Amino acid sequence: MAFHKIINDPVYGFITIDDELVFNIIAHPYYQRLRRIQQMAMAHLVYPGAVHTRLHHSLGAYHLMCLALQELTRKGIDITPAEQQAAKIAILLHDVGHGPYSHALEQVLAEGVHHEKISLLIIEALNQKFDGKLQMALEIFTGAYPKKYLHQLVSGQLDVDRMDYLTRDSFFSGVVEGYVAYDRILKMITVHNGELMVEEKGIYSIEKFLIARRLMYRQVYLHKTVVSAEQMLQRIIKRAKFVAAACAQPLNSFINEPLQNITLDQFCSIDDADVMMAIKTWCSHSDKVLALLSNGIMNRNLLKVKYSATPADEAFVKRTKLAVMQHYELNEADANWLVFEGNASISTYDFDDNPIKILYKNGEVKDIAQVDDALINESLRGKSKKYYICYIGL
Amino acid sequence: MAFHKIINDPVYGFITIDDELVFNIIAHPYYQRLRRIQQMAMAHLVYPGAVHTRLHHSLGAYHLMCLALQELTRKGIDITPAEQQAAKIAILLHDVGHGPYSHALEQVLAEGVHHEKISLLIIEALNQKFDGKLQMALEIFTGAYPKKYLHQLVSGQLDVDRMDYLTRDSFFSGVVEGYVAYDRILKMITVHNGELMVEEKGIYSIEKFLIARRLMYRQVYLHKTVVSAEQMLQRIIKRAKFVAAACAQPLNSFINEPLQNITLDQFCSIDDADVMMAIKTWCSHSDKVLALLSNGIMNRNLLKVKYSATPADEAFVKRTKLAVMQHYELNEADANWLVFEGNASISTYDFDDNPIKILYKNGEVKDIAQVDDALINESLRGKSKKYYICYIGL
Amino acid sequence: MAFHKIINDPVYGFITIDDELVFNIIAHPYYQRLRRIQQMAMAHLVYPGAVHTRLHHSLGAYHLMCLALQELTRKGIDITPAEQQAAKIAILLHDVGHGPYSHALEQVLAEGVHHEKISLLIIEALNQKFDGKLQMALEIFTGAYPKKYLHQLVSGQLDVDRMDYLTRDSFFSGVVEGYVAYDRILKMITVHNGELMVEEKGIYSIEKFLIARRLMYRQVYLHKTVVSAEQMLQRIIKRAKFVAAACAQPLNSFINEPLQNITLDQFCSIDDADVMMAIKTWCSHSDKVLALLSNGIMNRNLLKVKYSATPADEAFVKRTKLAVMQHYELNEADANWLVFEGNASISTYDFDDNPIKILYKNGEVKDIAQVDDALINESLRGKSKKYYICYIGL
Amino acid sequence: MAFHKIINDPVYGFITIDDELVFNIIAHPYYQRLRRIQQMAMAHLVYPGAVHTRLHHSLGAYHLMCLALQELTRKGIDITPAEQQAAKIAILLHDVGHGPYSHALEQVLAEGVHHEKISLLIIEALNQKFDGKLQMALEIFTGAYPKKYLHQLVSGQLDVDRMDYLTRDSFFSGVVEGYVAYDRILKMITVHNGELMVEEKGIYSIEKFLIARRLMYRQVYLHKTVVSAEQMLQRIIKRAKFVAAACAQPLNSFINEPLQNITLDQFCSIDDADVMMAIKTWCSHSDKVLALLSNGIMNRNLLKVKYSATPADEAFVKRTKLAVMQHYELNEADANWLVFEGNASISTYDFDDNPIKILYKNGEVKDIAQVDDALINESLRGKSKKYYICYIGL
Repeated sequence: MAFHKIINDPVYGFITIDDELVFNIIAHPYYQRLRRIQQMAMAHLVYPGAVHTRLHHSLGAYHLMCLALQELTRKGIDITPAEQQAAKIAILLHDVGHGPYSHALEQVLAEGVHHEKISLLIIEALNQKFDGKLQMALEIFTGAYPKKYLHQLVSGQLDVDRMDYLTRDSFFSGVVEGYVAYDRILKMITVHNGELMVEEKGIYSIEKFLIARRLMYRQVYLHKTVVSAEQMLQRIIKRAKFVAAACAQPLNSFINEPLQNITLDQFCSIDDADVMMAIKTWCSHSDKVLALLSNGIMNRNLLKVKYSATPADEAFVKRTKLAVMQHYELNEADANWLVFEGNASISTYDFDDNPIKILYKNGEVKDIAQVDDALINESLRGKSKKYYICYIGL
Repeated sequence: MAFHKIINDPVYGFITIDDELVFNIIAHPYYQRLRRIQQMAMAHLVYPGAVHTRLHHSLGAYHLMCLALQELTRKGIDITPAEQQAAKIAILLHDVGHGPYSHALEQVLAEGVHHEKISLLIIEALNQKFDGKLQMALEIFTGAYPKKYLHQLVSGQLDVDRMDYLTRDSFFSGVVEGYVAYDRILKMITVHNGELMVEEKGIYSIEKFLIARRLMYRQVYLHKTVVSAEQMLQRIIKRAKFVAAACAQPLNSFINEPLQNITLDQFCSIDDADVMMAIKTWCSHSDKVLALLSNGIMNRNLLKVKYSATPADEAFVKRTKLAVMQHYELNEADANWLVFEGNASISTYDFDDNPIKILYKNGEVKDIAQVDDALINESLRGKSKKYYICYIGL
Repeated sequence: MAFHKIINDPVYGFITIDDELVFNIIAHPYYQRLRRIQQMAMAHLVYPGAVHTRLHHSLGAYHLMCLALQELTRKGIDITPAEQQAAKIAILLHDVGHGPYSHALEQVLAEGVHHEKISLLIIEALNQKFDGKLQMALEIFTGAYPKKYLHQLVSGQLDVDRMDYLTRDSFFSGVVEGYVAYDRILKMITVHNGELMVEEKGIYSIEKFLIARRLMYRQVYLHKTVVSAEQMLQRIIKRAKFVAAACAQPLNSFINEPLQNITLDQFCSIDDADVMMAIKTWCSHSDKVLALLSNGIMNRNLLKVKYSATPADEAFVKRTKLAVMQHYELNEADANWLVFEGNASISTYDFDDNPIKILYKNGEVKDIAQVDDALINESLRGKSKKYYICYIGL
Repeated sequence: MAFHKIINDPVYGFITIDDELVFNIIAHPYYQRLRRIQQMAMAHLVYPGAVHTRLHHSLGAYHLMCLALQELTRKGIDITPAEQQAAKIAILLHDVGHGPYSHALEQVLAEGVHHEKISLLIIEALNQKFDGKLQMALEIFTGAYPKKYLHQLVSGQLDVDRMDYLTRDSFFSGVVEGYVAYDRILKMITVHNGELMVEEKGIYSIEKFLIARRLMYRQVYLHKTVVSAEQMLQRIIKRAKFVAAACAQPLNSFINEPLQNITLDQFCSIDDADVMMAIKTWCSHSDKVLALLSNGIMNRNLLKVKYSATPADEAFVKRTKLAVMQHYELNEADANWLVFEGNASISTYDFDDNPIKILYKNGEVKDIAQVDDALINESLRGKSKKYYICYIGL
């Protein structure tokens, strides 16, 4: 009897691991670390169920990749067993380079280094440890592998990454409207001219998929309280760097040393707990700004946020800043850490890059935005930008 | 302890009846008849689970009305107990005038009489039987009652009727993408200037609601096989009238007598079973067309359908018709019953009538199609029309 | 690309038909007839969602058979493609012999002939029509095929028939407690010594399965209102025979002719609608008993029922019968149709026949009722019998 | 408009907070700390979705308490608004005394002090902060309040705590068989003679509830891998105390100081992250046992476990211990930390303490274990004990 492990998943029922190499990669400490990194960072402050991990998401995306490959194979697309294994490994590891609180801290903990870059470094390291068996996965991950559609399944406007995170984030947050009919979509995909496409009858499911994504961004990922908490998290780390606040190793190196001093092993040894513990320590730090922000996150005493369609009213910002300076006895530079503006934008569909293509029965191919009676049409082009102001309560 | 009955519902869990008048209306034969009328007519030929009844849908809509009234009351809208009872009764009975196979046969069994007209007649009849206690329900049903929003809950672009049928039809057909977040929407409704509106934060839920409806129409209600079966059903009745085919009473009167001879009691005594039994009888009728169509429906041997964005190719229609005439030995007039064209159209949103209004926190009111970055915008105006041709296989 | 059809199912998501013979059997009128026979007869009078059909249940059981065969094959059990096809066809057709309202009328419409007998006749007829291709399915159905476990999957204490009907009936009735973890159980089955067994780690799932069944019988199938309605249905047919009440053909033959005159084709042409239409006709029959019962069913005006642990109090029965005789002006013989006693019994587990066997890792085999700390143990032996009295209200 | 907050919950849909005092208690840091304590400790190593928090469970139990009080009130039980508020607060805070990894570390972090004792201390502290407004909640929590059933709802064999944790743990772990029909059960509860009881028709739901609990214990809470991980966690802390291993404050005090030195504030400042960070530090500790266990937990490299119905085979234990001593170069005393025996036991129902009482329609009261044909009967009396041996792999 072949290798066979089953994992219970509240979202998909069961996830099956029937490849020993895949199993061994999952067992590796680099991968297990993802257990300690929450998928949705601070979103649980609004949606208390949203505490699932990057490990869980990666396993889910892996499961959807299995379903996708099975369907394409059934449709006669020739994908070798080695390619199938490689595509599964590529998706399994696509997020392995995420650091603590993933996106929320990506820009501040390893400034200027995108998590995909680190994922790549880790996959390369694992490739060495596993005697080059991850070589093809590496190529699929970077897009170098000739069968382009395998990379598109890992990363594109209709990849299994998005399909899983929307499904999973919607499930755990309880925002059922974010539900994505992943099973139906995965029965509608096909390959044409070497590219991933969707069969004609899948048009409405794709529309729904894009609308679900649109809703999740607006209602969950960019929920004003979530934005506030994640802004606070970023500012805590930035302020800690600014005032050279100490914390336990190895996180301390990320705060107080230049990035080039840090090794991959050090990176792989930090997770959400390191940041959380540092913040706990900083709750009683002598720097007032750091202490205010740290206590705020710990006790869910968050900065207030106002969204608007236009940049914030300057008079209001000025007035608020003055009040904060007085109330907390801060100079203006410090008050700027506690009263600040920003903006967020999200497009429903990227009209220019890597379009979702529909394959008609008659062989015609159309961009989803160009089908008859398209819901996703040019009228939506342009990122939708929203402005916000965050400020501490008095 | 007050009157209290609980009904198990796979969709909502439990439906509570805590009003004796409502209970007595449910117990009345006119209402119980709805048990024998399927909500989705022939859709079960494609979606085998879609066999739920008009009675079940009406109970569901009643349940959502209870939730809506509860939320509005909580928000301080003054709705008297009598008005609440009346609104509940109005929605409970909104479909009571549906005949066998409801929409599918509406135009042919009682030609020229809309089911809402018959619902009104039945509500009036019940009002007499219940000593005038349904008077206010009648007024809400017709829109005569001053509090316009009560009628809007019964009938409008965001009424509890649509909310239930989308939710329920999606549930029973297994087309999960048609899911509507009725619970969230019902927490977002409010009344402003006497009209039903949706709070600002409900915008994305409303968008999703409209998209879900769009999808259900395209994927389910107008599924080509469903259209074929329902066209066949209509043509069976029309052909039966045409050839004066007999069947059991009282359905026979509907076939072979002028409409004005038919009483309300006769109308209320026919249901899906009468039509089904008549069709069984006609399977061996001497009229070839009637027999072909009847056998087709009974054994799920349906006419073929082709959809297209433009009217059907005349050459194809002609060619097909000739082949059918030859194969089945029919003249052209008869072949026209088995080879015919039609069209179906569905708008995502009605831009002109009874718009869905959004109430902003600052008191502003906007049509959902006019909000910033609207998904439902002018680019979708105009019904989307699709053409089809139906024809019998050879 | 191989033959491949997908059917939406609210219970399992998608059911796949990837065998053309299976597809052709489904398309046959004998099978399509099951669309017109409700799975749960009169249970919808209590659980309005419980209107699903025998066709839907058969498709569901077929789906579970596919999963079961897939799992056994994965575990190295050698099952040939022909055997797999045969087992799928056997389960698909296991209920094809059900008549109108299935179990509820089984004893009265074709007295003395069990539905499995008729299923067998129909499978034989289909075997002829399909050139003997159903021969192996026939053998599996009857238990004649050497691989006993294939028959056990079709019919046994842990067959896919039960697994589907519990799951499906629970789903449509909304009694979520009847939920059965069919997916987990199907991952735990295996074959040992030619018999179907359950792996050790599946013990608790099996316990839950038996308890779910226990609950469904007590709460749903033997719900007092359901029992009342089904008793009424039986008595309507019996009374119709007794008074030789006429109705439309072919049902009329079942009522007014000896069983041996009836052909298989006649049997296959009646369904729920025939019975429902006959009952409608009898609502105004001159026989008072028949008319009372018929109106009761049509308008959900049901006989009252009292359950008790012991046979009904004779004094109460006598008193009630007298009151009914007076009120409805009936003689005692006729009153006996409207006031009567009965009993129902259901065992949680059949200790003697076809036990569910657990296969331990060490190779040991135990009856589920004999495992350590068994929930299902000898203390439950013996059918649990409940007595009821049904009587018409005054 | 009254105070009104809504929280999205994937399990129940929405949880409503409509009481400002309740809201303020939730906002308190003592309560917010529960966000950082996982409900199921190490179970996520087997069930990756099981990462929900004590805060989420407490909110869920609060929600069920609201439903329970609403139902009892509807049934005419007189519960004052003050009592309702108090019962809600009591359940909200019932777990507030849990420390890091709750049950798993309860016995080692604060030896000899049960978490309910600490909950009580915290409720008293909060009572002071909130000017005595939690006095009645305190009395309900301790059982001192005269209306005994309010305490039974908080703590008993059928309390809302169990109902929520079974429902929630089943949901997040994906072990759907643990599902509890909380909504049906909560419609069946009543109060009789001052005690909480279940109406007769709820018997089967209660049986299912007990069986679901039985299954969750056997399949999840006492899953051998979960037991292994939790044993390792306990041994890490014990070993850290034994070798006086240092870690960051304030956890360090718990390890290296007598319990009486620790304040409530110190207790309330530690959570899962403190333990996780300490374990990370100890991964490179000079004590080999501590380092082995710490690395094991971090990288999911767990001790092996064997369950058996009888105490472990002594020869096997001895042989294993010797092998471990040799392989890891340890003396016997140290090897005992890595090879050890234990047992776990769980009764399906507690026959002696606080029975679940059924109230029959005729006024009779029976213990659920004494009803006719009881599934939960004397044959199950006695805890079911299972023995295990844990040992490190070589």
